[in-house]
Amino acid sequence: MDGLSSAELSSYLEEVRGWTLAEIDRIIPRGTRHDDELYALMRDYPFREAKGLRPALCFAVCRALGGGHEAMMPTAAVFELYHNAFLIHDDVEDGSLLRRDRPTLHRQHGVPIAVNVGDAMLALCLGPLLDNTRTLGVGKALRLLELVARMARESAEGQAIELGWIRRGTWSLADRDYYRMVHKKTTWYSFLAPMLAGAIVAGATPQQQTRIRLLASLMGTAFQIQDDVLNLVAAERAYGKEIAGDLWEGKHTLMIVALMRSADEADRAAAAAVLRKRRPVDDGDTGPDVKTEEEVTRLRDHLFKYGCVDYARRRAQQRADRAARLFSVLRGALAPSVHRDFLAGLMQYLVTRNH
Amino acid sequence: MDGLSSAELSSYLEEVRGWTLAEIDRIIPRGTRHDDELYALMRDYPFREAKGLRPALCFAVCRALGGGHEAMMPTAAVFELYHNAFLIHDDVEDGSLLRRDRPTLHRQHGVPIAVNVGDAMLALCLGPLLDNTRTLGVGKALRLLELVARMARESAEGQAIELGWIRRGTWSLADRDYYRMVHKKTTWYSFLAPMLAGAIVAGATPQQQTRIRLLASLMGTAFQIQDDVLNLVAAERAYGKEIAGDLWEGKHTLMIVALMRSADEADRAAAAAVLRKRRPVDDGDTGPDVKTEEEVTRLRDHLFKYGCVDYARRRAQQRADRAARLFSVLRGALAPSVHRDFLAGLMQYLVTRNH
Repeated sequence: MDGLSSAELSSYLEEVRGWTLAEIDRIIPRGTRHDDELYALMRDYPFREAKGLRPALCFAVCRALGGGHEAMMPTAAVFELYHNAFLIHDDVEDGSLLRRDRPTLHRQHGVPIAVNVGDAMLALCLGPLLDNTRTLGVGKALRLLELVARMARESAEGQAIELGWIRRGTWSLADRDYYRMVHKKTTWYSFLAPMLAGAIVAGATPQQQTRIRLLASLMGTAFQIQDDVLNLVAAERAYGKEIAGDLWEGKHTLMIVALMRSADEADRAAAAAVLRKRRPVDDGDTGPDVKTEEEVTRLRDHLFKYGCVDYARRRAQQRADRAARLFSVLRGALAPSVHRDFLAGLMQYLVTRNH
Repeated sequence: MDGLSSAELSSYLEEVRGWTLAEIDRIIPRGTRHDDELYALMRDYPFREAKGLRPALCFAVCRALGGGHEAMMPTAAVFELYHNAFLIHDDVEDGSLLRRDRPTLHRQHGVPIAVNVGDAMLALCLGPLLDNTRTLGVGKALRLLELVARMARESAEGQAIELGWIRRGTWSLADRDYYRMVHKKTTWYSFLAPMLAGAIVAGATPQQQTRIRLLASLMGTAFQIQDDVLNLVAAERAYGKEIAGDLWEGKHTLMIVALMRSADEADRAAAAAVLRKRRPVDDGDTGPDVKTEEEVTRLRDHLFKYGCVDYARRRAQQRADRAARLFSVLRGALAPSVHRDFLAGLMQYLVTRNH
């Protein structure tokens, strides 16, 4: 398919990442004596090491469809800002300890400041989207605002679904419950909205937009399943989160859904009991409601023993294959470009990546 | 000035409140099996008993300037939704126990769900603002979106200023530091943005908008100082928050600023030591870093002893008087209407209210 190699993908991502950070640096004010702290904290997450997948997707779709570089970059950067604002609030909501190899914002500055920094970032995102009226015209600018409003709502609905499961201790789920949650919580803001935004800015046809919507849905699910698998199997240094952090945090992954369906009664009950416990906040934090390393290790072993990791990998591969087939249809209408080849290469990368 | 009486003000507020709740009920989706919990929780705060000052201000300014009822109500309701979303996050950030006589959302459902419900409400607010393009035209709709984006940013900056003071234990401040914080944290979203939105929808002249901006600034400061005084002196039943809750929470009020300036060295040091302690989470929560009832009572007594309560009342009155004078200039251009008289009556109410 003329897809970029892994090294070429990385340098494409790096290039867009550089432009994105320059935009973000422009969007976040320098701050005055009174609010310099707020804006300094707002720069923290976005400038930590990251792939910058969302702006790259946005940019590549726009450019592959013939849209312009300057026209797209502010909005591409807005998706990275939304992503980081969601991460700050998600880290509070999930009680996460590390983000991109460093302590989470709420651990460094407390929950009150972290919640407020996230809110301030969400507010700042509206600026460049309103500026689009001047650079893209009112029609495209309003369609992008509608898209982002829908995205923010879908993300919160997805988060609510998972927080509800956690609150009620719900672990027996159908695969479709998991797919629905992931579609709202991850796919909408990581794939659907960025890729549709690229299509809108480029002036894609309705048919192209429909295909991109389906393509993005498949890529989003494949990405998230693979993310869950990596969290479980990758070495700590390569992946950058705590190993098996999802198990410690009690995340609802496709592997866990499969385990609760296929494990024998005793193993299922044991898994549910461990998942319902909370993670320790430090080494001295123990008790009947706190997970232990032995429990998490056994849970991890059971995911392998019952074939749940392979099951998840196959499901991710199926979706990546369908995405690749769909892309090859879409590709016919695209002029040759590095942007087109980036998207082609990304299909395979989504499932084979190890970080 | 032909201002409405206290009883007439109340019934005006009640009438707009009814329309506001009908709009909010329309804006918040009914929810499906998967997200009904999210949308049920989103209805909680807005439907608790409240005055609905922000939508009433918005509506009254619009109508007094000749704008239409239907044209204004969706945006008026959006200000009430923003207010409630901010309250949910502020309650988390301040560790508040009660909101409108009932437990705060995070105490009932946990911090993760409360943060997410606030985020979802912020996302929903964009819908009616984008629908304005069809009812008000693109020009007014975009100006309202710009206004709301600025408002959300100012609010977060104001919150950041106070959270920074709390985090660093800063208590020695100039009055202007307090005024700056209040202008951003409260005035912008409670007065400036709602009143300017009313002016935009009504098609007010630039001169009218400039006067409304100044009027709103004066009203906002007067309102907040009076709110702080009420928190300290009002009987619990009449006011609906815990008595002296601001002292327990260590809020930065004009009275505290005055105390730290005028108290003798020993009383100032004692006050700072108490303010830096945290509030107890329940009756059994004691320790050297936890406030006691005796300490809070002594702090309250000192605010009276050093004349800080009277000082704050005078400052509020000054601003209310200036607002009334400014309004009488603005009033010359307004046709007689209940909306005009509501605004006139509100000037005095802001300072004499006891709930």
